[in-house]
Amino acid sequence: MQARMGPNQYGKAEIRLMKVDRDHARHVLHDLTVSVALAGDMDRVHVDGDNSPVLPTDTQKNTAYAFAREHGVAEIEDFAALLARHFVATQVAVRRATVTVEEHAWERLADHSFARSGRETRTATVRYDGDRIEVRSGLRDLVLLSSTASEFRGFATDRWTTLPETDDRILCTSVDARWRHTAPQADWRASYDAVRSALTTAFADTYSRSLQHTLYAMGARVVSTCHGVAEVRLRLPNRHHILVDLAPFGLENPGEVFHVDDRPYGLIEGTVLADGADADDGAW
Amino acid sequence: MQARMGPNQYGKAEIRLMKVDRDHARHVLHDLTVSVALAGDMDRVHVDGDNSPVLPTDTQKNTAYAFAREHGVAEIEDFAALLARHFVATQVAVRRATVTVEEHAWERLADHSFARSGRETRTATVRYDGDRIEVRSGLRDLVLLSSTASEFRGFATDRWTTLPETDDRILCTSVDARWRHTAPQADWRASYDAVRSALTTAFADTYSRSLQHTLYAMGARVVSTCHGVAEVRLRLPNRHHILVDLAPFGLENPGEVFHVDDRPYGLIEGTVLADGADADDGAW
Amino acid sequence: MQARMGPNQYGKAEIRLMKVDRDHARHVLHDLTVSVALAGDMDRVHVDGDNSPVLPTDTQKNTAYAFAREHGVAEIEDFAALLARHFVATQVAVRRATVTVEEHAWERLADHSFARSGRETRTATVRYDGDRIEVRSGLRDLVLLSSTASEFRGFATDRWTTLPETDDRILCTSVDARWRHTAPQADWRASYDAVRSALTTAFADTYSRSLQHTLYAMGARVVSTCHGVAEVRLRLPNRHHILVDLAPFGLENPGEVFHVDDRPYGLIEGTVLADGADADDGAW
Amino acid sequence: MQARMGPNQYGKAEIRLMKVDRDHARHVLHDLTVSVALAGDMDRVHVDGDNSPVLPTDTQKNTAYAFAREHGVAEIEDFAALLARHFVATQVAVRRATVTVEEHAWERLADHSFARSGRETRTATVRYDGDRIEVRSGLRDLVLLSSTASEFRGFATDRWTTLPETDDRILCTSVDARWRHTAPQADWRASYDAVRSALTTAFADTYSRSLQHTLYAMGARVVSTCHGVAEVRLRLPNRHHILVDLAPFGLENPGEVFHVDDRPYGLIEGTVLADGADADDGAW
Repeated sequence: MQARMGPNQYGKAEIRLMKVDRDHARHVLHDLTVSVALAGDMDRVHVDGDNSPVLPTDTQKNTAYAFAREHGVAEIEDFAALLARHFVATQVAVRRATVTVEEHAWERLADHSFARSGRETRTATVRYDGDRIEVRSGLRDLVLLSSTASEFRGFATDRWTTLPETDDRILCTSVDARWRHTAPQADWRASYDAVRSALTTAFADTYSRSLQHTLYAMGARVVSTCHGVAEVRLRLPNRHHILVDLAPFGLENPGEVFHVDDRPYGLIEGTVLADGADADDGAW
Repeated sequence: MQARMGPNQYGKAEIRLMKVDRDHARHVLHDLTVSVALAGDMDRVHVDGDNSPVLPTDTQKNTAYAFAREHGVAEIEDFAALLARHFVATQVAVRRATVTVEEHAWERLADHSFARSGRETRTATVRYDGDRIEVRSGLRDLVLLSSTASEFRGFATDRWTTLPETDDRILCTSVDARWRHTAPQADWRASYDAVRSALTTAFADTYSRSLQHTLYAMGARVVSTCHGVAEVRLRLPNRHHILVDLAPFGLENPGEVFHVDDRPYGLIEGTVLADGADADDGAW
Repeated sequence: MQARMGPNQYGKAEIRLMKVDRDHARHVLHDLTVSVALAGDMDRVHVDGDNSPVLPTDTQKNTAYAFAREHGVAEIEDFAALLARHFVATQVAVRRATVTVEEHAWERLADHSFARSGRETRTATVRYDGDRIEVRSGLRDLVLLSSTASEFRGFATDRWTTLPETDDRILCTSVDARWRHTAPQADWRASYDAVRSALTTAFADTYSRSLQHTLYAMGARVVSTCHGVAEVRLRLPNRHHILVDLAPFGLENPGEVFHVDDRPYGLIEGTVLADGADADDGAW
Repeated sequence: MQARMGPNQYGKAEIRLMKVDRDHARHVLHDLTVSVALAGDMDRVHVDGDNSPVLPTDTQKNTAYAFAREHGVAEIEDFAALLARHFVATQVAVRRATVTVEEHAWERLADHSFARSGRETRTATVRYDGDRIEVRSGLRDLVLLSSTASEFRGFATDRWTTLPETDDRILCTSVDARWRHTAPQADWRASYDAVRSALTTAFADTYSRSLQHTLYAMGARVVSTCHGVAEVRLRLPNRHHILVDLAPFGLENPGEVFHVDDRPYGLIEGTVLADGADADDGAW
């Protein structure tokens, strides 16, 4: 059987880049992880070992560092777009560039001192094909918990079902969310803050009938209240907190002591769309 | 803006299951990690909190354990297919089931004693929609290295390029491969062994002009020599080994001492197809 | 050569325990990881397989859950001490118990909803031998960074030295600190907050001549300002931020763009003592 | 309260070093992770910010690379000793050097091609104080499992005990072992192979009454059969495999299907000594 090359891309992944803005009275940190993936006319690279179309991944790394210096990285969506446009514009063999930027948050201690906030990581993915630019904003590792106002009842059962219904449980998840904009935001950070707030607020004030139910409430809150967001994709692991049976010790346990289980875990994935928007199979 | 539910799925992830076959003179281990994802008519689950279509992820876990006992887990592709068919066949709301099974290898020390082999993990993903069944076999974390016979020259350069050409470098990658079968294999393990052998052999005997070049050689070897494999998808991080500059100490370093770098890393992704096959956007 | 048993201990490690205090208008979370290690007259357990002195690690786990219900876990030092005393008091074969409790912090979103703070983890280790009780408080994974006011000059050099001196660098570390109390604190949390504040404040307002210099400043601040702390042990990895050379691209880089390196890293470890206190080789 | 400096050390950790021996017909790999810790007269470094006694950790890294080139790394115990002696001999402020080297194993595919063996990591720690040299060899992440011939009965019980006795369970652990030599071994690798074989053989042919019992059997086998080994320290997590209750589904489960639990886990730690040897509190 003969072989031929199918779809492919290549690039530098996880460039760890710290940019310090020093032109303020107080320094500002931008702590980024940048990944680049380029696609285009690369069949001969693979089949023939002809490297002439290959811009080295080392060069991609250099470009990220140099552009951070030249252009700054004030908004990760803009920085990702800048890089994506550059590679397509300057490399004839490159037909599509996908750039992902993650931003790790720091809290200020003093003018030039900081503590890393271990809260969620903000993300942006931009894909550019020479014509259309797609922007996805997101976050991951935002761990949320409700200690009540969560039930799970009325589910399907079969021969293999042993789970009892519950009308009061802990609901805990680590939010991985990405969202699609209808147009570039005027202020990416303000947009991010609005989406984050919609997610946490909807989580906190929804009486949950299932994690699926909560997922929809979170996504619907985003598309209904955040300007210019057409679609949200959520991936929510269910971090099971299992009520410990203390009856053998003559103790009641009215929702007080839980075992936090590692694996397995439920995994709920879903897309919420603004009415009129279609799910878009672009650069997620 | 009103909201509506888009594509979604849910299930139990990372069920850690050890099956001991005890009906042999010597025990046989099957050390698995099983993940299930179900999709179907679940809009009201999300929007209305109506759980009647939801088979709990806890039940999915129970089913995996019970089926391992009833049917055994001799081949992970078969076990994944068994589970996928079961959920679609028995749950009216479930229109599609995707089951992934990973197998962790052990080496025998004695009749009933084993040492875990830390080599690659074998994987299988099966998706069933009530009609068509898709099977993907795979492996991950197979780390390969060539200490010579690898060059990287003749690449594109621009203003940001500083990388020198090299005609002798270390090439190291951690193989993540998945492949699609044209039909169910008569012997999944034999097929797996053939693909693994094709991958390592092609890696070892290819004079590499780039990791892309090696990727194609590996994929082409698989589709051209392994019966019933139509498509291979490879994801190859380039684990950079950087020759240490010992000149400041008056020492030459002719390819002997390297710094092994963690991040960033090159990431090469590509699909190799048997002639006549089309890339298939199914359950990868 | 004959063999004999030397020092040993055993116990249950990493019990993941969530305690919800529900007797407030607003719930309070205590998210703990508890580890127990017991030592005593266990030679025959090892040599002869006589389990009569062995309290199962499963029982230790049960005890942690039950005590959390019965006694609460308001302060991790107290909870660790309660468990340590219990095992020594009730098991004749147990001569020494060491209990470590880690607390993972959450931020309140609403009365019953929380977001996990990814900041440092608070720790406590208590060892009890039936007579003396030793308490160590601590924290780990507190990542601090100064974007200026850090130099490294005047160091020893030899034939293998290539590092240039610098009078302005990024200093970044992940603080792992443990401290010894002269007596039980009246308010463990207040003591913890005082130590944490001393560590971060000293980090922020010290002009650093080396990470060792900063380590001492941090430790000295603790023992000189925090009531009842006699000794601090610090373990500070130096998370190198390497200024990127942008000269090949015609760009200056005056302390703005850095590569964040993973490995190797400097590792600075040191103990700071209150005057009059001796280093104590107890339960660290 | 005044402060003063207590015990301290500093160095470069996790230097990732690949050495290729190219002077054979077939290349030989030495894939190492090297960590250095130096101690000595460093009070003024910490207290006064006087760096004159500080050999930069960057220099330590350079030295490891250069020595690998100059002297080779045939045996990790020898390489660690070479580095430890060097730092004490050449730096007047350094009174004690501790060097740890880990070796990651590779399997040969062809003359110049290799697959990383994911099995255990071999370790060596050498401490030198200008007078006495201490050598510890070791291994970690050797995961062993017995599918039968393991019981746990006759243990102590109290009010909090619910664990039933069992006369047939899976016993699984990840071996972390370090051992002390009475004198330098003539052939470090042969010694390593002998110890590894003693550990796995004793694990496999011991009828286990507890993991403690198995620990002793493993350690005793080493000191009684491996020439020149005076002491073994073992750290054995008990990787619980929990028999799944299939009775709700009308199925028996005679030791066939297990849930592999992540946390919590038992942790058994113990030292086994050759008769006449005392436990030695040196460089573990």
